[in-house]
Amino acid sequence: MFEVIGERINTSRKSVQAAVAERDASYIIDDVKRQQGAGANYIDVNAGARIGHEKEDMEWLLDTIQPVATIPLTLDSPDPAILEMAFTMVKKPPMINSISLEKERFNSMMPFLEGKDCKVIALCMDDSGMPDSCDDIVARAKTLIEELNAIGIATANIYVDPLIQPISTDSNKGVMVLDAVRAIKAGYPEVHITGGLSNISYGLPQRHIINRTFITLMMDAGMDSAIIDPLDRKIMAAIHTTDMLLGNDQFCMGYLKGVRSGAIES
Amino acid sequence: MFEVIGERINTSRKSVQAAVAERDASYIIDDVKRQQGAGANYIDVNAGARIGHEKEDMEWLLDTIQPVATIPLTLDSPDPAILEMAFTMVKKPPMINSISLEKERFNSMMPFLEGKDCKVIALCMDDSGMPDSCDDIVARAKTLIEELNAIGIATANIYVDPLIQPISTDSNKGVMVLDAVRAIKAGYPEVHITGGLSNISYGLPQRHIINRTFITLMMDAGMDSAIIDPLDRKIMAAIHTTDMLLGNDQFCMGYLKGVRSGAIES
Repeated sequence: MFEVIGERINTSRKSVQAAVAERDASYIIDDVKRQQGAGANYIDVNAGARIGHEKEDMEWLLDTIQPVATIPLTLDSPDPAILEMAFTMVKKPPMINSISLEKERFNSMMPFLEGKDCKVIALCMDDSGMPDSCDDIVARAKTLIEELNAIGIATANIYVDPLIQPISTDSNKGVMVLDAVRAIKAGYPEVHITGGLSNISYGLPQRHIINRTFITLMMDAGMDSAIIDPLDRKIMAAIHTTDMLLGNDQFCMGYLKGVRSGAIES
Repeated sequence: MFEVIGERINTSRKSVQAAVAERDASYIIDDVKRQQGAGANYIDVNAGARIGHEKEDMEWLLDTIQPVATIPLTLDSPDPAILEMAFTMVKKPPMINSISLEKERFNSMMPFLEGKDCKVIALCMDDSGMPDSCDDIVARAKTLIEELNAIGIATANIYVDPLIQPISTDSNKGVMVLDAVRAIKAGYPEVHITGGLSNISYGLPQRHIINRTFITLMMDAGMDSAIIDPLDRKIMAAIHTTDMLLGNDQFCMGYLKGVRSGAIES
């Protein structure tokens, strides 16, 4: 089953930042309910944008969201102290967003993750920056999976983000990540592949058609999760339609339900 | 390069049938020009729907289209006598639509094709009907390619149509044909893969989103041609966008041209 990580509760979004600053619980509750109603499987919670306020903002957001959340949360912070606090507050085992191979983040996240019952997003990023080639992505994914396995995180709880890069900078960037996803899934059939989509279309016009066409290609390669806005009907329609075409929707029930609800239109 | 076979000049379309019956040359000329302007690489010409009139209708259509056609024609008939006549009328080596493994069609088409300078669409159909499995499609494609090679048609001039079937009848029908296309291209890298798209969505609502999502998947598997309406902007936009994402559009020039012309919208 494809899993949608709803990205909307992020204080880098102006309206969310305003709601958090004003402690406007009803705005946040409404947004979470809409994401759940649209088919999100996780609610990402990021309180990082108000510098100096991340701890109390995260605490307030979790207090606000927990009573209405019917799905697990994705705790999104680079700060293990914030994550430790958040971890004790959540009622369902959360997803952690994220670890990478950047030395500082890696060294601070590993002790936090060790022995925890959680899922984790593993970014194929290191101190040299974004990966340069298919082999580079695959090698970074392998290192992350093996390091996480060694501290007790099962492969099935790891969500590798291969880091989608703009096709406008190099016409090979799409094929590079598609091939990498196929190779990672061949080596680790239980691992999940996730990520944001919008980078692929950076610098180009009419970005939505690029994003939704690319998610179809990524799903065919093995991507089974994405960090997106579940209220973006066109991207959700592309996901449901692709899922059906890839044989994951018996009797087309999910697709037909999507059409009846108005979520899928031609 | 992806090749679009424009399907509009077909007397089974009411407006085309009326134009042909009335010998309305300007209607036909205008339609051909619009298909060419929208990016067609071939114009399919099918005069089969007015029973008893196919020969003179095909002759009139070719006389009408030739002076304005800047691209080759696809001669679409099951009758070798009609094709022999049409073949002498065309100015560029045509594509023939089509041969199959149905005994009657196979036995009548092979003598016609032998020694001809043409491309040919090869349908994976036999007297038992549509193929039942991936292996079945691949085996039929292999037989067609080898039989055509034996009468002098090069693999690079063969356009295999694996026969897309409705996902509504079996949720595996999409994966079946995608896997078959990958296997055929692995065995015969020079062969082309073509076909109609609309069968995939037969029996389901909001068919356009299914058709254009499926062409993205088929292109990733190796489809490099389709028999479609080039005036369907959404399917053409999906083709251009997918081509870019698969690395076939250096500097995104084709995509950007499509956006500027208004052909690609989100």
